[in-house]
Order: sequence, then structure tokens, then C-alpha cells
Amino acid sequence: MTEQFAELRPTARILLGPGPSNVHPRVMKAMMSPVIGHLDPDFVKVMEDLKRLQRAVFRTQNEMTFPASGTGSSGMEMIAANLIEDGDQVIVGVNGAFGTRFADCAERQGARVHKVEAEWGRIIEPDTVKRALASVSNPKLVVIVHAETSTGVHQPIEEISALARTHGALLVVDAVTSLACVPLETDRWGIDACFSCTQKGLSAPPGLAPVTFSARAMEAIRRRKSKCRSWYLDVAAIGSYWGSERVYHHTAPITMIYALYEALRVVMEEGLEQRWLRHRSNAAALHAGLGALGLKLAAQEGRRLPQLTTVEVPPGVDEARVRAELLQQFNIEIAAGLGPLRGKVWRIGLMGESSRRENVTLVLGALEQILAGAGFELSRGKALAAAQAAWATG
Amino acid sequence: MTEQFAELRPTARILLGPGPSNVHPRVMKAMMSPVIGHLDPDFVKVMEDLKRLQRAVFRTQNEMTFPASGTGSSGMEMIAANLIEDGDQVIVGVNGAFGTRFADCAERQGARVHKVEAEWGRIIEPDTVKRALASVSNPKLVVIVHAETSTGVHQPIEEISALARTHGALLVVDAVTSLACVPLETDRWGIDACFSCTQKGLSAPPGLAPVTFSARAMEAIRRRKSKCRSWYLDVAAIGSYWGSERVYHHTAPITMIYALYEALRVVMEEGLEQRWLRHRSNAAALHAGLGALGLKLAAQEGRRLPQLTTVEVPPGVDEARVRAELLQQFNIEIAAGLGPLRGKVWRIGLMGESSRRENVTLVLGALEQILAGAGFELSRGKALAAAQAAWATG
Repeated sequence: MTEQFAELRPTARILLGPGPSNVHPRVMKAMMSPVIGHLDPDFVKVMEDLKRLQRAVFRTQNEMTFPASGTGSSGMEMIAANLIEDGDQVIVGVNGAFGTRFADCAERQGARVHKVEAEWGRIIEPDTVKRALASVSNPKLVVIVHAETSTGVHQPIEEISALARTHGALLVVDAVTSLACVPLETDRWGIDACFSCTQKGLSAPPGLAPVTFSARAMEAIRRRKSKCRSWYLDVAAIGSYWGSERVYHHTAPITMIYALYEALRVVMEEGLEQRWLRHRSNAAALHAGLGALGLKLAAQEGRRLPQLTTVEVPPGVDEARVRAELLQQFNIEIAAGLGPLRGKVWRIGLMGESSRRENVTLVLGALEQILAGAGFELSRGKALAAAQAAWATG
Repeated sequence: MTEQFAELRPTARILLGPGPSNVHPRVMKAMMSPVIGHLDPDFVKVMEDLKRLQRAVFRTQNEMTFPASGTGSSGMEMIAANLIEDGDQVIVGVNGAFGTRFADCAERQGARVHKVEAEWGRIIEPDTVKRALASVSNPKLVVIVHAETSTGVHQPIEEISALARTHGALLVVDAVTSLACVPLETDRWGIDACFSCTQKGLSAPPGLAPVTFSARAMEAIRRRKSKCRSWYLDVAAIGSYWGSERVYHHTAPITMIYALYEALRVVMEEGLEQRWLRHRSNAAALHAGLGALGLKLAAQEGRRLPQLTTVEVPPGVDEARVRAELLQQFNIEIAAGLGPLRGKVWRIGLMGESSRRENVTLVLGALEQILAGAGFELSRGKALAAAQAAWATG
């Protein structure tokens, strides 16, 4: 049967969707380091350095800062499974697919979920969180998505954090699409539990979920009356492996940890502030160019993520066909809308290594050709000039 | 801060512990394939081929055969979380660390667990399972560990399978340490759910859990009265991504899937039967050599795994020091005992790529030097001759 299965030959793509982003070559190289045992002294040193790097990127001093052994969503589930017990009151901001997802996950863990909703494409207003906190007795968690990957909305955190603290609730932040793209200040903003992924702002392959837990969150975990429902994601047990005890829990995903280590090193060498600036500058150019093409942005003005842009599909244009032509003719991946935005928007990502001047130039040029070919009325040649002007001023 | 964090330079090791095993160079190379989107047509083709390869290695026709996005234990948790509802009766064979682990995991998922126990180092006798089945009303699952990594015991499955079937229970098999090392016949033995890992018999890095579910298991999942408690490991949702619908659930760990694909291809090129034979032959040589050194094997005679050998630590020998010298002087990793066997045994793995004549020769030679240096009385030079004789006859 073996002759049926060919050598792997996936086409290299320019990844301008909601993740994965293009992987840094140094990360690819790091993955070639020899696989060694999860208790090998050489690996233990990597773990210790990785924790310090991850703290730096999360801007936290939290001792419990490490990667969960699964993709970004496993970080979500780790936080829900460890911080929620049956009947706990959990307030979740829902203005897109990932708030919806957390609410579902929290309910499965036994929470009484109170959704604070906003239209897809708009932020969760702090006032609505305030009202929810006032109406729920003994709220345990407030959950908010920092960067809604389904809508491109950039959620402010600080005001909601202050409200949660006032009501004695822990603040959980979904930073899957924000880490290393836009400012995220775990300690300064009073975030108690935060999760992200490797394949977006960090530009490593998907496979790990960097997480961090504050001392308050760890105290809540220690005070649980029931065991964590998840054996695999039990923070108390995993903490004994990542802590100085080194008690075996499960075999760490060695190669992915090498990848994350190198990706974090690349981020810190560029510098977080410089990286945030790069994302903002390239997004401004993309947005200017899209405007010059006659396209409209879907997310709330002033609250748009630089790393993920939702673009309205113009009337009469075949949404899926444009994506297919981008992929087939230009090897560019962008993404469709999710949920109520399916068929209505494209999602263009400029995350991590993918946020580059050449990629903005390319995607604008490709879109101009495809849309002109599809009979969409546009003024040729304006998009690149607009992008260039944005770079010059930004 | 970046200058504090050095380039990754882990020492290459000869991995003769309970996993990870040494990774095949073709698997390392496959991981360098470009990361692409989890819905990219090129990736979808890899997924389809991977499922067919995984079915071949599990010896199953099960439609629901795919890798869970976590290490081996995530496969255990996926099976427990999807097949168990509150109050379900679950019979678990416990004769080592991994039966104990499944029992813990099942309890966390709400099961009423009935442990069928045997001494660590001995198999679970089918008669004890028979008695448990007779005493438990409406048993839903019988769980058995095929290869107990903590003891080196090789558990026969077929008789227990027949008993489970007679009582209408589903049979769950932990094949973490058995897949691609010893015969595993998912369909022929009537296994309903089975999980393994990538870093042992398959010789890829750790990070995925190949799983398979029978039609009967899937029917039990469809008949659930409550939602699966795990969002991340919900088989119904993940099946929609791995099935023809391609509904996005979570971002697949692309690079690890490339690794698994290539590892499975390598296994099928060698041929499963040939691979089982290789493991048996090298283990026979190891066992003969250890005997000639004057060491005793800890697992029940006639039920010893070829891929994982537990060796009794002789009186007066410093268990940890021998392991440290193997690592420091020879770059060989072997492992300590777990639980009641801690300090009493060493665990020597010959799994996947690590099961090689050169590794047997090396570990015997290294042990002879270290034990002689530690004052253990042995006849020099006999181990290699005994191993050679075993290869000649085996």
C-alpha cells in the first residue's frame, strides 16, 4: 500500500489569513534540534528559559506561565476547566465566534454563563459588563476576548478589569490573536488568566497554547472543592512538572517547545514595542489601500485590529471565488467570514512574520487584479499609492 | 534581555527510555514542509492520506480514525470525555501507572470506576474482569492497558474483549506503548476505542495522539444525554473537521501532522509484521544480555514487552547514579521506575527507531562498564556473547 502515499509536497503559501501566519525560518531550524527526554537536564534548562521568555512576552511576573500541550483552544479549556466548578457564575463577553466558544466551553465545565453581548464587529461596552456584574451574585469570572479573530475588533481591557476586580471576579482574557501583535499587559491590566497560541503573533507552527495564571487565579484553583474535570489540563499537576519538582505528568511536546522557544527569542530580539509598531504601520497601509480600491472595512472604526482586518465583500462579487483566485493564482491565503459574517466579509491577517510591507503590497496588487477581472468598478493603481502614503506618514 | 537566551543546543541522546524514542530522520525532514492553512486543499489531502495510513497501522476500517491534537494522554482524555457520562459504570484494569491514570481520568469525567487490580508487573487476569463484569450492573466500558509502560507487561486483549462484548460493554484499549511495536488488531480483537502516541513505536516527536473509534463507540457518543464536558476534545465536533464537512473546530497542529504522516509512511514501508519481528528479536538479545550480566527482569515471565523492559536494580547498586552515568558518559537515556517500582527497577526502551542491534550492543556494553565500576560482581564479556547468540537463534 505504501506506494499510494506520496512524499509530502504542500505548496508554500503566503499566509494572510487569521492564522497560521508564516513561520520564521529560525523557528523551522530550531525544530530540527534533537528530540530528547522530557526529564533530560538539557530539556529542563530549555523549560526554565522558555518560562522566562514567555513571561516577558505576556508582560507578567506570574510564576505559573508555561505552554499548554495543545493548540490555542486547549489554553481556553485549561483555564475554564481549572477555574470553573459546578454552578460558578461566569460572565462572558460575546461579540464574535470566540466569545461564543468560551461560553460553550464554560457551560460544559458546569458554569452558569451570563453572556454580555454586542453586535459582531463592535466591542463589548464596559457599561454592559458593569450591569451584568451588578445583576449576578458572586461572579467568579469575567471573560473577554482581546482580539476577536472573527470580526477584527480590538477590545479595550482595562476598564473591564477594574469592574471585575471591584466585584471580586477574576479576569480571563483570550489573547489568541493579540499576543505579540498589539499591546497586552497582563500584570498592569490585572489579568488573572490569559491564553494564546503559537501560530499567529508568534509565527511558530500551531500546537501549543501559552498560558499564564496570576497568584489570585492559583489561589482559586487551590481552593477548589472538586477535582479539575480534565486530567490532561489539570494545572496543579502540570505545575509540578513545569515547577522545580519536575514530577512527570505527560510527555511534553518537545519539538513544539523548541519552536516556541525560538519564536519567543525572535520576538524579544525585535522588541515588543517595535513589533506592535510594525503591525500598526502595515495595517494602516493595508487599510488605506483597501479604501482606495473602494472596499469597506467591517469592524467598528477606531477599534480595528492591525493584525486582522475584516473587509466587506462588495455587492455582486463572488466571495469564495476571490479567495480561490488569491490561492490559486497568487498562493495567498486569506479567510472567509464565520457565523453571521459568512459570505459577507473577507478576513485578511497581517500577523507576526506575515506583517510585512511586501505582503501588503502583494495582497493589494492581487486583489486589484482579481476584483477588476470580476467586473468590480475600481480605479486602477490607486491602492499602492495610498498604501505608500500611509507608510510615509505612519 | 535577549542575550540571556542562548541558541538551542540540546545534546543528542540515544533514547532508550519509555519514550520519546529516537526520531527517524525522514520525520525530521518532513517537519520542514511549509506550514499552510488548516483548510488549504493541499492540507486536506494530507489529512485524508493520514487517516488511511493511521487505519492501516491500527488494523482497522473505522471511519473515525485521526490524531487528537495533544500528546498521548489527550487521546486517553478524549476517549474518557466522549464515552463517559455522569454515573456510567466503568471497569478499569489497574496493574501499573497507566491503568491508575485512566481510572483517575474516568472518575473526573463522572464515571463510577471499578478497578480490577493486579500486582504491578503482572497482567490483568481475564477471570478478574469476568467477576467484575458479573458484579456491575450495566457496565459501559472495560478499559485495559495493552502495554503497561510502568512495568513492561504485555497484556493479552482478546479474552477480555469477548467478556466485555458478552456484557454489552465497550472495550477501550490504551495502546500508547504498543502501537507499531507489538501486534495490535483493533478490528479483529473487537476494540471499540483505542489511543496511542507519536513518540514511541512511531518514532515521531511527542505531540499527537492517534485515536480510533468503532461504529459502536460512535453510536454511544451520538446517544449521549449530556454534552461532552470537553470542548477541545469533543469527537462530534472534531469529526466534522476530519470528515468531509471540513467544519473548522480548532487549528490543526500542522507540523506535527506532517511528522505523523511521514512516521506512518516509514512504518508501512518497513511493514508492520517486520517491525514487530524486529522489536521481538532485539528484545530477546537485550534480555539474554541482561541475564548474562546477572540482572533480573521484573515483569511476569512470558508476558514481557519487547519494547519496554523493566530490570531489577541489584542490592547495593545506586539506581539513580547508574542512570546518571549512562546519560553523562554515554548519552544514553533510560528511565527510573514509577510508583511502587521507584528505586527498584530501571526501564529500558527499545521502541521504533530505537530498537536497533547497535543500541542493544551499546547499552549492554555501557551497563557492563558502569556496574563493574560500581562494585557489582559480574562476569565481563558475557553479555554481548549472549546477545549475539540470541540474535543468531531468533
